[in-house]
Amino acid sequence: MAVYTHLGAEALAALIAEFDVGTLVSAKGIAEGVSNSNWLIETSGAHDARTDATTPPPATRFILTVYEARTDTADLPFFLGLLDHLAAYHRRHGGCPVPRTIHDRAGAAFRRLTGPDGAHKAVALIEFLPGVAVSTPTPAQAHHVGAALAHLHLAGASFTPTRANAMGPPAWAQLLGACGAGGLATISPTLPPLVARELPAITRAWPTGLPVGTIHADLFPDNVLMLGEAVTGLIDFYFACTDILAYDLAVTHAAWCFAEAGGRFRPEISAALLAGYAAVRPLNTAEQAALPLLARGAALRFVATRAYDWLHTPADALVTRKDPVAFARRLAFYASEAGARVFAP
Amino acid sequence: MAVYTHLGAEALAALIAEFDVGTLVSAKGIAEGVSNSNWLIETSGAHDARTDATTPPPATRFILTVYEARTDTADLPFFLGLLDHLAAYHRRHGGCPVPRTIHDRAGAAFRRLTGPDGAHKAVALIEFLPGVAVSTPTPAQAHHVGAALAHLHLAGASFTPTRANAMGPPAWAQLLGACGAGGLATISPTLPPLVARELPAITRAWPTGLPVGTIHADLFPDNVLMLGEAVTGLIDFYFACTDILAYDLAVTHAAWCFAEAGGRFRPEISAALLAGYAAVRPLNTAEQAALPLLARGAALRFVATRAYDWLHTPADALVTRKDPVAFARRLAFYASEAGARVFAP
Repeated sequence: MAVYTHLGAEALAALIAEFDVGTLVSAKGIAEGVSNSNWLIETSGAHDARTDATTPPPATRFILTVYEARTDTADLPFFLGLLDHLAAYHRRHGGCPVPRTIHDRAGAAFRRLTGPDGAHKAVALIEFLPGVAVSTPTPAQAHHVGAALAHLHLAGASFTPTRANAMGPPAWAQLLGACGAGGLATISPTLPPLVARELPAITRAWPTGLPVGTIHADLFPDNVLMLGEAVTGLIDFYFACTDILAYDLAVTHAAWCFAEAGGRFRPEISAALLAGYAAVRPLNTAEQAALPLLARGAALRFVATRAYDWLHTPADALVTRKDPVAFARRLAFYASEAGARVFAP
Repeated sequence: MAVYTHLGAEALAALIAEFDVGTLVSAKGIAEGVSNSNWLIETSGAHDARTDATTPPPATRFILTVYEARTDTADLPFFLGLLDHLAAYHRRHGGCPVPRTIHDRAGAAFRRLTGPDGAHKAVALIEFLPGVAVSTPTPAQAHHVGAALAHLHLAGASFTPTRANAMGPPAWAQLLGACGAGGLATISPTLPPLVARELPAITRAWPTGLPVGTIHADLFPDNVLMLGEAVTGLIDFYFACTDILAYDLAVTHAAWCFAEAGGRFRPEISAALLAGYAAVRPLNTAEQAALPLLARGAALRFVATRAYDWLHTPADALVTRKDPVAFARRLAFYASEAGARVFAP
């Protein structure tokens, strides 16, 4: 939630001139994204080459992202190529609106900035999409989010690049090990016994043989733009990777189906999300059976990363730390009998 | 540079519905303003009641500001009334583009939000203006900024509400006293002797009898939107008050005429800024003679507030502290013979 890189108007204007989007009209640093710096950019628009009235006018608004240390530049061709692939799929088939990457005049999907200290940072210009992130979804909204996730999985099937999930089960063990039972206990005394029970149980039983493909892996409400009940944009693909498709549904379930205040499970949101997904991409029997375990894994993934960040974020950081305990409660819920019944077919 | 108040899409949509601006299309928290929370809002626009083609379409973009603790709500009628006054002047006469306040359906310039903790915060919807803030102004840009400031002073002459300058000479003494010589020395060993010499000298000689009116009092490059050489918006009037007009020119001089990197005095920017101002509102002899002292006061004002904030900002605050030493150097420059000569007629 911060802008880490200072870019003056002159530097921004010079950067924008490398793209065919017209001249800079406005630039506001935006408080989005935990690990990168983002600006909402307005330009005068590319030269308008429309020959008929049905073509929309050239875009004039964009998100400019400067990738800070936490994003590995080697992954950018995967992330940005995926945006372009999904956006092209959406234009043809609909179902998963994703912002496309604006390529520079030489055709590159990202450029490099040299800072005053000589350090290089990658920077990309990405389409702006309308919509707002909801805090308390309705069942109709959850249904559309489930459907959009399924469309994303169908669209991803034709995306050939792959990327290992850097936040999969081996990472959970590593992050929680780095916290230590003592560190976890300083966050909450409930964490050490929960982790000691769940981490080995989940990783030992982790399924193999389920359908694998390109997944978002972080589809929280923050990363879905909506207008009314419609999904207008899926954003922030910086955890996207190649992994179990049903695990992505489990992550989305863990992220959407609990009340923001208090954390109460919302069965009507769960039912709508699962039904929306299944309407577009029905789960096979093995996927359906694996969902309770995948949901425990999804919750544990956020316990692990949030606990690690909680203990390792300097007190003076510009980032607001996210509470790991909310996901520990979701993990305990998924591990309970009531939680397992949520995914009964 | 932060968003302190969380406003979900549902809360934002309900708030926007209180204004005749259409429905919410997009909302991005922006990293602007040191002490308030701001969103760049897009809406579908008010019902389009245009009867002729020359009237511009209804606005669809706005800045939504939630006033945090540092802004006294009792001052909002002054600040927001001033925006409306200056914007109306600009529509008739040009010269000082200022965003107007969007009044709600009941005609109020600001509303009150009730937070989950029951606390009330004031919130206002303000016109969005295009333009970007420059880091390294050109003489032509500085000339236009000087002219815009003079137009603002002319426009302010017909604004009858008044507000005392809470950041005038008595506040400098109070803030620097709260720092103490020991505290100042921890920032830089140059500060205590500079303050010990300048504070009494400046406040003792502070002029009376100069023309007084409505001043911006904080016209840094951050608060001026420009497109090319043109000023497209003067923003952030939350230090505006009733004080010596030439002091406002001195503040603007201290804010604009030194290189961002290294702090070198830029005589060509100084000359252009002063000429731009005088072309619209010529200074009288007393104002001209007072400028060297007013500039020392302007520099000391920012030494005082920045030193105080430096020593009193919690280390974990979301705000980036601003270095007081840059303005101590400007103060030393203005107090030198070379500095005084800058304002020779």
